[in-house]
Amino acid sequence: SRTGLKRGTLVIGSSTTIASYWLPPYLAKFCAQYPHIKVEVQIANTAQIEHALLECTIDLALVEGTPTEPHIISKHWQNDLMSVVIPSSLKPAKNVKAWLNKQFWLLREPGSGTLEMSVKLLQQHDVTAKNSMQLGSNEAIARAVAQGMGVALLPNVVTEDLVQLGKLTRLKPQNNIELSRPLYQLHYKDRPSSHAAQAFEKSLFSE
Amino acid sequence: SRTGLKRGTLVIGSSTTIASYWLPPYLAKFCAQYPHIKVEVQIANTAQIEHALLECTIDLALVEGTPTEPHIISKHWQNDLMSVVIPSSLKPAKNVKAWLNKQFWLLREPGSGTLEMSVKLLQQHDVTAKNSMQLGSNEAIARAVAQGMGVALLPNVVTEDLVQLGKLTRLKPQNNIELSRPLYQLHYKDRPSSHAAQAFEKSLFSE
Repeated sequence: SRTGLKRGTLVIGSSTTIASYWLPPYLAKFCAQYPHIKVEVQIANTAQIEHALLECTIDLALVEGTPTEPHIISKHWQNDLMSVVIPSSLKPAKNVKAWLNKQFWLLREPGSGTLEMSVKLLQQHDVTAKNSMQLGSNEAIARAVAQGMGVALLPNVVTEDLVQLGKLTRLKPQNNIELSRPLYQLHYKDRPSSHAAQAFEKSLFSE
Repeated sequence: SRTGLKRGTLVIGSSTTIASYWLPPYLAKFCAQYPHIKVEVQIANTAQIEHALLECTIDLALVEGTPTEPHIISKHWQNDLMSVVIPSSLKPAKNVKAWLNKQFWLLREPGSGTLEMSVKLLQQHDVTAKNSMQLGSNEAIARAVAQGMGVALLPNVVTEDLVQLGKLTRLKPQNNIELSRPLYQLHYKDRPSSHAAQAFEKSLFSE
Protein backbone atom coordinates (compact mmCIF):
# COMPACT_ATOMS: atom_id res chain seq x y z
CA SER A 1 0.00 0.00 0.00
CA ARG A 2 1.18 3.51 -0.74
CA THR A 3 -0.71 5.08 2.15
CA GLY A 4 2.47 6.20 3.81
CA LEU A 5 3.83 7.78 0.66
CA LYS A 6 1.38 10.60 0.06
CA ARG A 7 3.50 13.00 2.09
CA GLY A 8 6.86 12.83 3.75
CA THR A 9 10.52 13.54 3.30
CA LEU A 10 13.38 11.37 2.22
CA VAL A 11 16.92 12.52 3.00
CA ILE A 12 19.63 10.61 1.17
CA GLY A 13 23.25 10.80 2.26
CA SER A 14 25.75 9.94 -0.43
CA SER A 15 29.38 10.26 -1.45
CA THR A 16 30.16 12.72 -4.26
CA THR A 17 30.57 10.45 -7.27
CA ILE A 18 27.44 8.43 -6.42
CA ALA A 19 25.34 11.56 -5.90
CA SER A 20 26.64 13.27 -9.03
CA TYR A 21 26.52 10.39 -11.50
CA TRP A 22 24.71 7.29 -10.15
CA LEU A 23 21.76 8.79 -8.31
CA PRO A 24 20.12 11.22 -10.80
CA PRO A 25 18.27 8.56 -12.87
CA TYR A 26 16.95 6.87 -9.68
CA LEU A 27 15.89 10.23 -8.27
CA ALA A 28 14.10 11.15 -11.49
CA LYS A 29 12.16 7.89 -11.49
CA PHE A 30 11.29 8.10 -7.79
CA CYS A 31 10.16 11.74 -7.94
CA ALA A 32 7.96 11.01 -10.96
CA GLN A 33 6.37 8.08 -9.11
CA TYR A 34 6.00 9.84 -5.74
CA PRO A 35 5.68 13.56 -6.50
CA HIS A 36 4.51 14.41 -2.97
CA ILE A 37 7.60 13.06 -1.22
CA LYS A 38 10.19 15.78 -0.65
CA VAL A 39 13.62 14.35 -1.50
CA GLU A 40 16.96 15.87 -0.52
CA VAL A 41 20.50 14.69 -1.23
CA GLN A 42 23.34 15.50 1.17
CA ILE A 43 26.92 14.88 0.08
CA ALA A 44 29.64 13.88 2.53
CA ASN A 45 32.40 11.31 2.94
CA THR A 46 31.75 7.79 4.23
CA ALA A 47 32.67 8.57 7.84
CA GLN A 48 30.37 11.62 7.94
CA ILE A 49 27.54 9.65 6.36
CA GLU A 50 27.88 6.84 8.90
CA HIS A 51 27.62 9.44 11.64
CA ALA A 52 24.53 11.05 10.06
CA LEU A 53 22.93 7.60 9.82
CA LEU A 54 23.51 6.96 13.53
CA GLU A 55 22.19 10.44 14.36
CA CYS A 56 19.14 9.78 12.17
CA THR A 57 19.59 12.98 10.16
CA ILE A 58 19.51 10.96 6.92
CA ASP A 59 17.13 8.14 5.96
CA LEU A 60 19.24 6.26 3.48
CA ALA A 61 22.93 6.12 2.60
CA LEU A 62 24.98 5.19 -0.46
CA VAL A 63 28.78 5.18 -0.22
CA GLU A 64 31.97 3.94 -1.86
CA GLY A 65 33.87 2.88 1.25
CA THR A 66 33.23 0.10 3.73
CA PRO A 67 31.76 1.26 7.05
CA THR A 68 33.72 0.82 10.26
CA GLU A 69 30.88 1.38 12.74
CA PRO A 70 29.54 -1.95 14.17
CA HIS A 71 25.89 -0.80 14.20
CA ILE A 72 25.93 -0.17 10.48
CA ILE A 73 25.29 -2.93 7.96
CA SER A 74 26.39 -2.55 4.35
CA LYS A 75 24.62 -4.09 1.38
CA HIS A 76 26.35 -4.33 -1.99
CA TRP A 77 24.61 -2.10 -4.54
CA GLN A 78 26.61 -1.75 -7.76
CA ASN A 79 30.14 -1.98 -9.10
CA ASP A 80 31.73 1.29 -10.11
CA LEU A 81 33.92 0.44 -13.12
CA MET A 82 37.17 2.39 -13.27
CA SER A 83 39.62 2.89 -16.13
CA VAL A 84 42.98 4.46 -16.74
CA VAL A 85 42.35 7.57 -18.84
CA ILE A 86 44.96 9.33 -20.97
CA PRO A 87 44.85 12.46 -23.16
CA SER A 88 43.41 11.61 -26.59
CA SER A 89 46.58 13.01 -28.18
CA LEU A 90 48.76 10.42 -26.41
CA LYS A 91 49.64 6.95 -27.71
CA PRO A 92 50.97 4.50 -25.09
CA ALA A 93 54.09 2.49 -25.91
CA LYS A 94 53.76 -1.23 -26.69
CA ASN A 95 54.74 -2.16 -23.14
CA VAL A 96 51.81 -0.37 -21.51
CA LYS A 97 52.85 -1.22 -17.95
CA ALA A 98 56.34 0.24 -18.36
CA TRP A 99 54.84 3.24 -20.13
CA LEU A 100 52.30 3.85 -17.34
CA ASN A 101 55.08 3.67 -14.74
CA LYS A 102 56.79 6.59 -16.46
CA GLN A 103 53.72 8.80 -16.75
CA PHE A 104 52.78 11.75 -14.57
CA TRP A 105 49.81 10.65 -12.44
CA LEU A 106 46.95 12.85 -11.26
CA LEU A 107 45.68 11.56 -7.93
CA ARG A 108 43.06 12.51 -5.36
CA GLU A 109 43.94 13.67 -1.84
CA PRO A 110 44.62 11.25 1.07
CA GLY A 111 41.32 10.16 2.61
CA SER A 112 39.51 9.98 -0.74
CA GLY A 113 37.89 6.68 -1.70
CA THR A 114 39.04 7.14 -5.29
CA LEU A 115 42.68 7.53 -4.19
CA GLU A 116 42.54 4.46 -1.94
CA MET A 117 41.08 2.35 -4.71
CA SER A 118 43.42 3.78 -7.35
CA VAL A 119 46.55 2.92 -5.40
CA LYS A 120 45.25 -0.60 -4.69
CA LEU A 121 44.24 -1.29 -8.29
CA LEU A 122 47.47 0.11 -9.70
CA GLN A 123 49.52 -2.03 -7.29
CA GLN A 124 47.62 -5.14 -8.40
CA HIS A 125 48.70 -4.28 -11.93
CA ASP A 126 52.29 -3.53 -10.97
CA VAL A 127 52.00 0.16 -11.78
CA THR A 128 53.53 2.74 -9.45
CA ALA A 129 52.49 6.39 -9.63
CA LYS A 130 55.99 7.76 -8.96
CA ASN A 131 55.53 11.26 -10.38
CA SER A 132 52.21 12.59 -9.28
CA MET A 133 50.11 15.57 -8.32
CA GLN A 134 47.16 15.90 -5.96
CA LEU A 135 43.90 17.39 -7.17
CA GLY A 136 40.85 17.54 -4.90
CA SER A 137 38.10 16.40 -7.30
CA ASN A 138 37.51 13.76 -9.96
CA GLU A 139 36.21 16.42 -12.39
CA ALA A 140 39.44 18.41 -11.95
CA ILE A 141 41.50 15.29 -12.63
CA ALA A 142 39.47 14.35 -15.73
CA ARG A 143 39.91 17.86 -17.14
CA ALA A 144 43.61 17.99 -16.26
CA VAL A 145 44.11 14.72 -18.18
CA ALA A 146 42.16 16.17 -21.13
CA GLN A 147 44.58 19.16 -21.02
CA GLY A 148 47.48 16.74 -21.48
CA MET A 149 48.85 17.04 -17.93
CA GLY A 150 49.11 13.34 -17.20
CA VAL A 151 47.13 10.13 -16.74
CA ALA A 152 44.69 8.96 -14.05
CA LEU A 153 42.50 6.12 -12.85
CA LEU A 154 38.91 7.37 -12.67
CA PRO A 155 35.37 5.96 -12.41
CA ASN A 156 33.94 5.51 -15.92
CA VAL A 157 30.80 7.47 -14.99
CA VAL A 158 32.95 10.58 -14.43
CA THR A 159 34.76 10.37 -17.78
CA GLU A 160 31.81 9.27 -19.97
CA ASP A 161 31.05 12.69 -21.51
CA LEU A 162 34.70 13.63 -22.12
CA VAL A 163 35.33 10.24 -23.76
CA GLN A 164 32.24 10.72 -25.96
CA LEU A 165 33.50 14.18 -26.95
CA GLY A 166 36.89 12.73 -27.87
CA LYS A 167 38.78 14.67 -25.19
CA LEU A 168 39.88 11.58 -23.22
CA THR A 169 40.79 8.02 -24.12
CA ARG A 170 40.24 5.02 -21.84
CA LEU A 171 42.87 2.28 -21.88
CA LYS A 172 41.53 -1.24 -22.26
CA PRO A 173 42.03 -3.21 -19.02
CA GLN A 174 45.21 -5.29 -18.99
CA ASN A 175 44.55 -9.04 -19.45
CA ASN A 176 40.88 -8.09 -19.75
CA ILE A 177 40.59 -7.76 -15.97
CA GLU A 178 38.10 -4.98 -15.36
CA LEU A 179 38.91 -2.57 -12.55
CA SER A 180 36.01 -1.75 -10.26
CA ARG A 181 35.08 -0.80 -6.75
CA PRO A 182 31.89 -1.82 -4.94
CA LEU A 183 29.24 0.72 -3.99
CA TYR A 184 27.21 0.04 -0.85
CA GLN A 185 23.92 0.96 0.69
CA LEU A 186 24.26 1.43 4.44
CA HIS A 187 21.69 0.48 7.07
CA TYR A 188 21.48 1.45 10.71
CA LYS A 189 20.88 -1.94 12.32
CA ASP A 190 18.28 -1.00 14.92
CA ARG A 191 16.26 1.54 12.96
CA PRO A 192 13.15 0.68 10.97
CA SER A 193 13.06 2.38 7.55
CA SER A 194 10.36 4.91 6.69
CA HIS A 195 7.91 4.00 3.92
CA ALA A 196 9.62 6.49 1.61
CA ALA A 197 13.05 5.00 2.34
CA GLN A 198 11.70 1.49 1.74
CA ALA A 199 10.22 2.53 -1.60
CA PHE A 200 13.45 4.22 -2.69
CA GLU A 201 15.50 1.23 -1.61
CA LYS A 202 13.25 -1.03 -3.63
CA SER A 203 13.84 1.06 -6.75
CA LEU A 204 17.61 1.03 -6.11
CA PHE A 205 17.67 -2.76 -6.27
CA SER A 206 15.20 -3.39 -9.10
CA GLU A 207 16.61 -3.20 -12.60
CA SER B 1 64.89 35.48 -12.65
CA ARG B 2 63.63 31.94 -12.21
CA THR B 3 66.22 31.04 -9.56
CA GLY B 4 63.55 30.41 -6.97
CA LEU B 5 61.51 28.22 -9.29
CA LYS B 6 63.80 25.25 -9.80
CA ARG B 7 62.36 23.48 -6.78
CA GLY B 8 59.49 24.15 -4.41
CA THR B 9 55.87 23.45 -3.74
CA LEU B 10 52.76 25.41 -4.58
CA VAL B 11 49.57 24.59 -2.70
CA ILE B 12 46.43 26.09 -4.18
CA GLY B 13 43.21 26.28 -2.22
CA SER B 14 40.09 26.55 -4.34
CA SER B 15 36.33 26.12 -4.31
CA THR B 16 34.96 23.08 -6.15
CA THR B 17 33.75 24.58 -9.43
CA ILE B 18 36.92 26.63 -9.89
CA ALA B 19 39.19 23.66 -9.17
CA SER B 20 37.20 21.29 -11.37
CA TYR B 21 36.62 23.49 -14.40
CA TRP B 22 38.61 26.76 -14.34
CA LEU B 23 41.97 25.66 -12.98
CA PRO B 24 43.01 22.65 -15.15
CA PRO B 25 44.21 24.68 -18.20
CA TYR B 26 46.23 27.05 -15.94
CA LEU B 27 47.71 24.09 -14.06
CA ALA B 28 48.65 22.36 -17.32
CA LYS B 29 50.44 25.48 -18.58
CA PHE B 30 52.22 26.13 -15.27
CA CYS B 31 53.39 22.53 -14.83
CA ALA B 32 54.73 22.44 -18.38
CA GLN B 33 56.63 25.67 -17.76
CA TYR B 34 57.89 24.77 -14.26
CA PRO B 35 58.12 20.97 -14.16
CA HIS B 36 60.15 20.95 -10.94
CA ILE B 37 57.56 22.77 -8.85
CA LYS B 38 55.28 20.35 -7.00
CA VAL B 39 51.72 21.64 -7.30
CA GLU B 40 48.75 20.50 -5.19
CA VAL B 41 45.11 21.59 -5.26
CA GLN B 42 43.00 21.46 -2.10
CA ILE B 43 39.24 21.92 -2.37
CA ALA B 44 37.18 23.56 0.36
CA ASN B 45 34.54 26.25 0.81
CA THR B 46 35.38 29.95 1.00
CA ALA B 47 35.42 30.08 4.81
CA GLN B 48 37.75 27.09 5.07
CA ILE B 49 40.05 28.52 2.40
CA GLU B 50 40.26 31.88 4.20
CA HIS B 51 41.26 30.00 7.33
CA ALA B 52 43.91 27.97 5.47
CA LEU B 53 45.30 31.20 4.02
CA LEU B 54 45.64 32.73 7.48
CA GLU B 55 47.22 29.51 8.78
CA CYS B 56 49.62 29.55 5.80
CA THR B 57 48.78 25.96 4.80
CA ILE B 58 48.00 27.15 1.27
CA ASP B 59 49.98 29.57 -0.91
CA LEU B 60 47.25 30.85 -3.16
CA ALA B 61 43.45 30.90 -3.11
CA LEU B 62 40.68 31.12 -5.70
CA VAL B 63 37.08 31.32 -4.53
CA GLU B 64 33.54 32.23 -5.56
CA GLY B 65 32.43 34.05 -2.43
CA THR B 66 33.58 37.32 -0.93
CA PRO B 67 35.85 36.97 2.10
CA THR B 68 34.74 38.23 5.49
CA GLU B 69 38.12 38.20 7.25
CA PRO B 70 39.66 41.72 7.46
CA HIS B 71 43.24 40.50 6.85
CA ILE B 72 42.31 39.00 3.52
CA ILE B 73 42.22 41.05 0.34
CA SER B 74 40.29 39.84 -2.68
CA LYS B 75 41.20 40.55 -6.27
CA HIS B 76 38.68 40.03 -9.06
CA TRP B 77 39.81 37.21 -11.35
CA GLN B 78 37.09 36.16 -13.80
CA ASN B 79 33.33 36.18 -14.23
CA ASP B 80 31.64 32.81 -13.99
CA LEU B 81 28.74 32.99 -16.47
CA MET B 82 25.61 31.16 -15.34
CA SER B 83 22.55 30.05 -17.30
CA VAL B 84 19.19 28.49 -16.66
CA VAL B 85 19.36 24.96 -18.05
CA ILE B 86 16.37 22.81 -18.97
CA PRO B 87 16.04 19.25 -20.30
CA SER B 88 16.55 19.20 -24.09
CA SER B 89 13.13 17.57 -24.44
CA LEU B 90 11.36 20.56 -22.85
CA LYS B 91 10.06 23.64 -24.69
CA PRO B 92 9.37 26.68 -22.50
CA ALA B 93 6.09 28.54 -22.98
CA LYS B 94 6.09 31.95 -24.68
CA ASN B 95 6.00 33.72 -21.33
CA VAL B 96 9.30 32.30 -20.09
CA LYS B 97 9.15 34.02 -16.69
CA ALA B 98 5.72 32.60 -15.86
CA TRP B 99 6.83 29.22 -17.18
CA LEU B 100 9.99 29.22 -15.05
CA ASN B 101 7.94 30.10 -11.97
CA LYS B 102 5.95 26.91 -12.46
CA GLN B 103 8.94 24.60 -12.95
CA PHE B 104 10.48 22.24 -10.44
CA TRP B 105 13.85 23.72 -9.43
CA LEU B 106 16.97 21.80 -8.52
CA LEU B 107 18.99 23.80 -6.02
CA ARG B 108 22.19 23.42 -4.02
CA GLU B 109 22.24 23.15 -0.23
CA PRO B 110 22.22 26.21 2.10
CA GLY B 111 25.77 27.53 2.46
CA SER B 112 26.69 26.86 -1.17
CA GLY B 113 27.93 29.77 -3.28
CA THR B 114 25.93 28.52 -6.26
CA LEU B 115 22.69 28.51 -4.23
CA GLU B 116 23.30 32.02 -2.87
CA MET B 117 23.96 33.38 -6.35
CA SER B 118 21.07 31.43 -7.90
CA VAL B 119 18.51 32.81 -5.49
CA LYS B 120 19.81 36.37 -5.99
CA LEU B 121 19.88 36.15 -9.78
CA LEU B 122 16.45 34.54 -9.98
CA GLN B 123 15.00 37.24 -7.71
CA GLN B 124 16.44 39.93 -9.97
CA HIS B 125 14.56 38.31 -12.82
CA ASP B 126 11.36 37.90 -10.84
CA VAL B 127 11.55 34.13 -10.79
CA THR B 128 10.73 32.22 -7.61
CA ALA B 129 11.81 28.62 -7.16
CA LYS B 130 8.64 27.55 -5.35
CA ASN B 131 8.85 23.81 -5.95
CA SER B 132 12.37 22.68 -5.41
CA MET B 133 14.71 19.96 -4.32
CA GLN B 134 18.18 20.11 -2.77
CA LEU B 135 21.07 18.27 -4.35
CA GLY B 136 24.59 18.57 -2.94
CA SER B 137 26.61 19.01 -6.14
CA ASN B 138 26.46 20.92 -9.43
CA GLU B 139 27.18 17.73 -11.40
CA ALA B 140 24.24 15.99 -9.70
CA ILE B 141 21.97 18.92 -10.58
CA ALA B 142 23.15 19.03 -14.22
CA ARG B 143 22.47 15.30 -14.59
CA ALA B 144 19.11 15.49 -12.81
CA VAL B 145 18.05 18.22 -15.28
CA ALA B 146 19.26 16.05 -18.18
CA GLN B 147 17.02 13.25 -16.76
CA GLY B 148 14.03 15.58 -17.04
CA MET B 149 13.60 16.19 -13.30
CA GLY B 150 13.41 19.96 -13.45
CA VAL B 151 15.35 23.12 -14.26
CA ALA B 152 18.34 24.82 -12.64
CA LEU B 153 20.66 27.81 -12.74
CA LEU B 154 24.23 26.52 -13.16
CA PRO B 155 27.67 27.84 -14.13
CA ASN B 156 28.18 27.39 -17.89
CA VAL B 157 31.52 25.61 -17.32
CA VAL B 158 29.66 22.81 -15.52
CA THR B 159 27.06 22.26 -18.26
CA GLU B 160 29.34 22.72 -21.33
CA ASP B 161 29.81 19.00 -22.13
CA LEU B 162 26.15 18.04 -21.56
CA VAL B 163 25.03 20.97 -23.76
CA GLN B 164 27.48 19.87 -26.49
CA LEU B 165 26.13 16.32 -26.26
CA GLY B 166 22.58 17.62 -26.63
CA LYS B 167 21.47 16.43 -23.18
CA LEU B 168 20.80 19.92 -21.80
CA THR B 169 19.57 23.21 -23.27
CA ARG B 170 20.58 26.63 -21.98
CA LEU B 171 17.94 29.36 -22.03
CA LYS B 172 19.02 32.68 -23.55
CA PRO B 173 19.28 35.36 -20.86
CA GLN B 174 16.16 37.50 -20.52
CA ASN B 175 16.55 41.00 -22.02
CA ASN B 176 20.06 39.88 -22.99
CA ILE B 177 21.30 40.45 -19.45
CA GLU B 178 23.96 37.83 -18.84
CA LEU B 179 23.96 36.19 -15.42
CA SER B 180 27.34 35.85 -13.80
CA ARG B 181 29.17 35.75 -10.51
CA PRO B 182 32.66 37.07 -9.84
CA LEU B 183 35.55 34.75 -9.01
CA TYR B 184 38.28 36.10 -6.73
CA GLN B 185 41.88 35.47 -5.91
CA LEU B 186 42.49 35.93 -2.19
CA HIS B 187 45.59 37.43 -0.58
CA TYR B 188 46.74 37.36 3.01
CA LYS B 189 47.61 41.01 3.56
CA ASP B 190 50.79 40.63 5.59
CA ARG B 191 52.33 37.64 3.86
CA PRO B 192 54.83 37.89 1.03
CA SER B 193 54.13 35.42 -1.79
CA SER B 194 56.61 32.68 -2.68
CA HIS B 195 58.27 32.82 -6.10
CA ALA B 196 56.12 29.90 -7.26
CA ALA B 197 52.92 31.61 -6.07
CA GLN B 198 53.97 34.84 -7.82
CA ALA B 199 54.61 32.98 -11.07
CA PHE B 200 51.26 31.17 -10.87
CA GLU B 201 49.45 34.41 -10.07
CA LYS B 202 51.06 36.04 -13.10
CA SER B 203 49.77 33.27 -15.36
CA LEU B 204 46.28 33.57 -13.83
CA PHE B 205 46.07 37.22 -14.88
CA SER B 206 47.75 37.06 -18.31
CA GLU B 207 45.53 36.02 -21.17
